Amino acid sequence: MNIKASICTIRDEILIGQIVDTNSSHIATELNAIGIKSAKMLSIGDSHDEIISTLEAELSSNDIVITTGGLGPTKDDITKAALGELSGSTGYVENAQQLEIIREILSGRHLEMLDINRAQASVPNTCEVIPNKLGTAPIMVFRFPAERFGHIATLYSLPGVPFEAVGAIPAIMDDIKAHYKTTDIFHKSIMTFGIAESALAKLIEPWEDALPEDMHLAYLPNLSTGVKLRLSIYGGNKEDEESKIDKAFNDLKEILGDNIYSFEEETLEVVIRRLLYQSGETLSAAESCTGGMISHMITSVSNSSNYYLGSVTSYAIPVKVNVLGVDQKVIDECGVVSSEVAAAMAEGVRKLTGSTYAVATTGLADKYGDERNPAGTVWFGVTGPHGTITVKRQHNHDRKRNIERFAATALDLLRRYILEERKNK
Amino acid sequence: MNIKASICTIRDEILIGQIVDTNSSHIATELNAIGIKSAKMLSIGDSHDEIISTLEAELSSNDIVITTGGLGPTKDDITKAALGELSGSTGYVENAQQLEIIREILSGRHLEMLDINRAQASVPNTCEVIPNKLGTAPIMVFRFPAERFGHIATLYSLPGVPFEAVGAIPAIMDDIKAHYKTTDIFHKSIMTFGIAESALAKLIEPWEDALPEDMHLAYLPNLSTGVKLRLSIYGGNKEDEESKIDKAFNDLKEILGDNIYSFEEETLEVVIRRLLYQSGETLSAAESCTGGMISHMITSVSNSSNYYLGSVTSYAIPVKVNVLGVDQKVIDECGVVSSEVAAAMAEGVRKLTGSTYAVATTGLADKYGDERNPAGTVWFGVTGPHGTITVKRQHNHDRKRNIERFAATALDLLRRYILEERKNK
Repeated sequence: MNIKASICTIRDEILIGQIVDTNSSHIATELNAIGIKSAKMLSIGDSHDEIISTLEAELSSNDIVITTGGLGPTKDDITKAALGELSGSTGYVENAQQLEIIREILSGRHLEMLDINRAQASVPNTCEVIPNKLGTAPIMVFRFPAERFGHIATLYSLPGVPFEAVGAIPAIMDDIKAHYKTTDIFHKSIMTFGIAESALAKLIEPWEDALPEDMHLAYLPNLSTGVKLRLSIYGGNKEDEESKIDKAFNDLKEILGDNIYSFEEETLEVVIRRLLYQSGETLSAAESCTGGMISHMITSVSNSSNYYLGSVTSYAIPVKVNVLGVDQKVIDECGVVSSEVAAAMAEGVRKLTGSTYAVATTGLADKYGDERNPAGTVWFGVTGPHGTITVKRQHNHDRKRNIERFAATALDLLRRYILEERKNK
Repeated sequence: MNIKASICTIRDEILIGQIVDTNSSHIATELNAIGIKSAKMLSIGDSHDEIISTLEAELSSNDIVITTGGLGPTKDDITKAALGELSGSTGYVENAQQLEIIREILSGRHLEMLDINRAQASVPNTCEVIPNKLGTAPIMVFRFPAERFGHIATLYSLPGVPFEAVGAIPAIMDDIKAHYKTTDIFHKSIMTFGIAESALAKLIEPWEDALPEDMHLAYLPNLSTGVKLRLSIYGGNKEDEESKIDKAFNDLKEILGDNIYSFEEETLEVVIRRLLYQSGETLSAAESCTGGMISHMITSVSNSSNYYLGSVTSYAIPVKVNVLGVDQKVIDECGVVSSEVAAAMAEGVRKLTGSTYAVATTGLADKYGDERNPAGTVWFGVTGPHGTITVKRQHNHDRKRNIERFAATALDLLRRYILEERKNK
């Protein structure tokens, strides 16, 4: 059976271009993973009639319609009422589970429950509720019998707030799998860093050409996590298909070596945790052009306090000199964006914190540069028990993206340094 | 006249979630600026029948339909043929201008012109061509007489490559203005922080109810920037309408006071720059639970080096004691998550860097807590020439979102501290 799905966002801000809809893409990806290709995506505004006419049309031509948005507490959120009317609801019922979640969220924020908060727990008596643990608006499921649209149709209404919408997706996929006959697609990914997409494609071309017919390779490049390689295969049974994929990736490991940093979908900061957690070794950072981003990435991981001691953001030169102990003469002679200063910053913060390893950055993230150091130039320093290395890179993104790329590269260089050290042990 | 427009992307990759459509958002923004609110956005796949049936439906219910995508040279790009059929084309004509552009682009890449390249310059004889200087695919304009869809309708076909699509928008807008009577729309937004959306809605309800009929209010909540309030008004002339909106916001200022941090669409870190840039005053930060996020936000702004000296991320207690000079006794007596430690961290980093102001955080961003400090508890310290304040908050987000919220709150408290100081001068 070929299941047809349609994804619909309900939010004025999208139609006036103020917000880019990313929810639909997340939903489409997950639908695709259970063999359902979305037939259409649409965005409509917060208009009662538009919502009803559009959803009636989509439900007539699709088995599944997933909407996001229009469920907030304020006056401009009207989706719930429209869905009640569309489904012939005769009244509202208060959902006890969602009411409890609302109560917890509000008390967590030390807010009293207002009528508009409580009202969010009430839903049309024509729907099933999937509690939304991440927000106040419940997830609603409307099941329409074949008489209504000529076929059995299901409408899922999700909140529009991206992390709530994304958080709701697994429950929606489970419900779809429970009610429709889906075919699985098996995916596995490996994470690489340090080779550009095009160079990578050339390097692994023979391997790619030798892949089984039914296996599909996707390149998913990302500034902060490098190029993800995803292998997909339709149908079949999980064990067989996944072992086929594992075999292909093992061959790839021969070609790419340490350029692969994870066989799970891990970030570099999670890999750093894997390397240091419970090893008793510790880490610190000294940041100039990355301005705190390295420290933020490291500490975005739970339990990072087990190995991460801290960092110094030395944005001003006196902080480099007085806090990190970088020699003013070195700065004067070599310039602040130099191998020498990157090394001195890493060694300085390692001494200051007493960490096993330390990583440092000094560079030009913004669009300004000079002859010796064009805009986007960055020097990295990594140090540990067996000495200090420095690396120079140059990127041409904007400030925000340069900072992201610099910080990710710093973590990758740290990862390679630690791996090297352990090999030499 | 109320002009209805629909924006349609034609590309399989969007429907499987591999690509997020940003073209539609750019087009909607520009349409909105000339008073045309897109009634709908849709994404469909590269299917001949789907393209024709969808576009017929959109042209029937809209004055203007703008499509992007499906114009590439390869076999899977079938939009042009579908548009030819839809418009009853009797043949193709080669567009000399576009052919010349294609020739230049290819020679620039040192490529010879292949038939598939040359074919891109040929268009159905039912359309007008707007040359696409940025790529090989011409922009096509199909004008349908009233007989066809019950009203005069125009279809604009743009390439899908984002920079080509965005590059084509000005010419499209000029063509729309030349053929339709457009009316302008005016938006203004103010940024608030520190009041939850529902509480804010209740607080300003009388003000909201008193707004002129033709003025629309939208609540746009965000963890890192607080709740944005946007007022929109259609038609009229710029000065009158904007002064109406300004008046409404001035009334709101009476109600919300310093909870409003910007009358432009600024972030907190940009407002901090406005407060400190060229004042000669400087800033530093000491971060525990925010782990570098405050420093990252401050340095994400260009020219932050003019007032930002740096920070210490004191994740481990010894760094708090040895680098920031927090008294070990205070930590033992009050606990590391306490008003006393927050104050000592802020004062410590201010002393260390010699900054005018300093902000500090100590708390529990993750799901672990104890009796005195439940998970999500955070203490903030802000210090400057006239003393130190501390503030306690508690949030119930996940680790990542707690960190974002903590950091944004720290910037907001710093902003309020600086404003207070200047009032008392």
